[in-house]
Amino acid sequence: MTGTVSRHELARFVDDVFRRVGMSAAHASIMADALVWANLRGVDSHGVVRLPRYLEMIDEDLMNLRPQPKVSHPVPVGIVIEADRAPGPAILTFAAEQLIERASQYGMAMALVGRMTHSGALGYYTEKAAKAGLACIALNAGVLAAMPYHGARGAVMGTNPISIAVPGGDEPLLFDMATSAISMGKVMAARRTGAPLEPGWAADQDGGPTTDAKAAAMVLPLGGPKGSGLAVMIECLASLLGGHPLIADALLDTGEGSKHRQNALLIAIDIAKFVDLTSFRAEVQRLTEALKALPLAPGSDEILLPGERGYRTMKQRSEKGIPLPPALVAELAAISARLQLAPLMMIG
Amino acid sequence: MTGTVSRHELARFVDDVFRRVGMSAAHASIMADALVWANLRGVDSHGVVRLPRYLEMIDEDLMNLRPQPKVSHPVPVGIVIEADRAPGPAILTFAAEQLIERASQYGMAMALVGRMTHSGALGYYTEKAAKAGLACIALNAGVLAAMPYHGARGAVMGTNPISIAVPGGDEPLLFDMATSAISMGKVMAARRTGAPLEPGWAADQDGGPTTDAKAAAMVLPLGGPKGSGLAVMIECLASLLGGHPLIADALLDTGEGSKHRQNALLIAIDIAKFVDLTSFRAEVQRLTEALKALPLAPGSDEILLPGERGYRTMKQRSEKGIPLPPALVAELAAISARLQLAPLMMIG
Repeated sequence: MTGTVSRHELARFVDDVFRRVGMSAAHASIMADALVWANLRGVDSHGVVRLPRYLEMIDEDLMNLRPQPKVSHPVPVGIVIEADRAPGPAILTFAAEQLIERASQYGMAMALVGRMTHSGALGYYTEKAAKAGLACIALNAGVLAAMPYHGARGAVMGTNPISIAVPGGDEPLLFDMATSAISMGKVMAARRTGAPLEPGWAADQDGGPTTDAKAAAMVLPLGGPKGSGLAVMIECLASLLGGHPLIADALLDTGEGSKHRQNALLIAIDIAKFVDLTSFRAEVQRLTEALKALPLAPGSDEILLPGERGYRTMKQRSEKGIPLPPALVAELAAISARLQLAPLMMIG
Repeated sequence: MTGTVSRHELARFVDDVFRRVGMSAAHASIMADALVWANLRGVDSHGVVRLPRYLEMIDEDLMNLRPQPKVSHPVPVGIVIEADRAPGPAILTFAAEQLIERASQYGMAMALVGRMTHSGALGYYTEKAAKAGLACIALNAGVLAAMPYHGARGAVMGTNPISIAVPGGDEPLLFDMATSAISMGKVMAARRTGAPLEPGWAADQDGGPTTDAKAAAMVLPLGGPKGSGLAVMIECLASLLGGHPLIADALLDTGEGSKHRQNALLIAIDIAKFVDLTSFRAEVQRLTEALKALPLAPGSDEILLPGERGYRTMKQRSEKGIPLPPALVAELAAISARLQLAPLMMIG
């Protein structure tokens, strides 16, 4: 059972699921929008494939259905949120809205969000700021043991991503990368096809480098010390600045140990305070056109700007629907049956 | 003629050289401190090896000996500097001082610096902020044609670096990376030893991948689209936000074309406004100790935190002197002869 689903039906379904298990209508609606946004852009790893795990996180009392976040402003340009284990997309959407308001007022602002659950795709929030005329940098720290620190054995860190977005000609330039060389999703895809991994992408159980996807137990940091160094700095900025350590608590089994939780730091700059916004957009457009007009490198089909493939996929999937793999369709069917909800209606 | 020189004698020499060619005593002193700082930390690519080129840049009227920068504050938390082609270290040191003052007052601040010359080692400025109790992010955009955009043929971008520093237990955590996979310095070292490059590190004249250092004409972006995407976002933030485009002007040969100039964006956050500074330092210390206590990966000798090797080298070279390669010693001797300055006194 494979299938394609419309963006609206998929959002309806996610919204129904979260409301049925007890989430507020406001939060359920954001969860639906954020997950479907990732699927629309082709970032399927951060789309509805996460739904089953999110439901488990609710059952395990990791994700709080009725959080009471504490919001403070130690300085006018700084928003600090203790998220009370709120769903990441719900609290980060709130944080982004607050951030846009404060940055528009003061020229720049920052939002520190601590103790939320999984952030979802980080570009979802930086894009919101870019669409409001701001430049935005987002850093996300996780406790997930996905990647080793360079030189050390064992997966002890999250693949702490960084996203940066600015307004562009039509759509924003939207950059979003993990600090790992590749995602575990790519390793799993290589396992299915039998394709070898490139050197520097993954390590085996003992931390030794491997190009065999079947032997790969963890992904390696992007460029070795560069990726793991950046990931540690993201932990310092997103976690320690808010007083919510993740890596040390997990390694030393103190505090909340390795219990799932995430932190984020968002910084936004109101472009119009520094340069005419229309000129800025025109300059971004001129830059992207100049880059896209370059001759292709050998073996390259196309020159793509940050976020461009995502916007293209979004246009296509908005029209033709979102393809879901058979295993996920079955999982979602089981969820609708268990929760006695209208099943997800496929269009193909 | 090889040699080792004390940090003070090397600083004396650089200071003499810049004052002799007409730089102000204040700027010459900063140039000496910044270049020797890089050598002390073992970042020799950003140390006195740059002196001959800096002198050429003065002769070519690219570096302005008597700049008159324009400083404005469109918002209280934003410092905007049109550098009037000032020497990068001089104007960035000024920007960092202003930034530290404003961030300490408002909780966070940013400094946009446009139209300066080569920045020098970016960590020099973020470290200053970290030593003042701030977290600091610095982005640097250059016009140097050092690296291709992913998928395109030809070296069209700078290796736009990012540095992040936070206060730590003893010394700051000091992260500083280029957005290229490696530096051209490493390629040149491999040419001398004949060692092969790793795949993904460099490309030949036609943009095709090569592991032969002799055939390598440019370095490749870190992780392909990740590195070149990050470099483009740094151009948007450091250059376009200040109204000083570099890449588009160079590619389209408009404005100042590919004439040497650089831009930077510095962001600083006053940690004590958000969390107790002593606790923050203790948490950074706890994190670094937990990481350093991890078992080693196969083939690894040691686990190093961002900046750690630099601090160790600095201690060693402060005591034992800075080693300079023979070719550089000869170049510096020629400079002192030409400018009729006291020659650089070696200690070994």
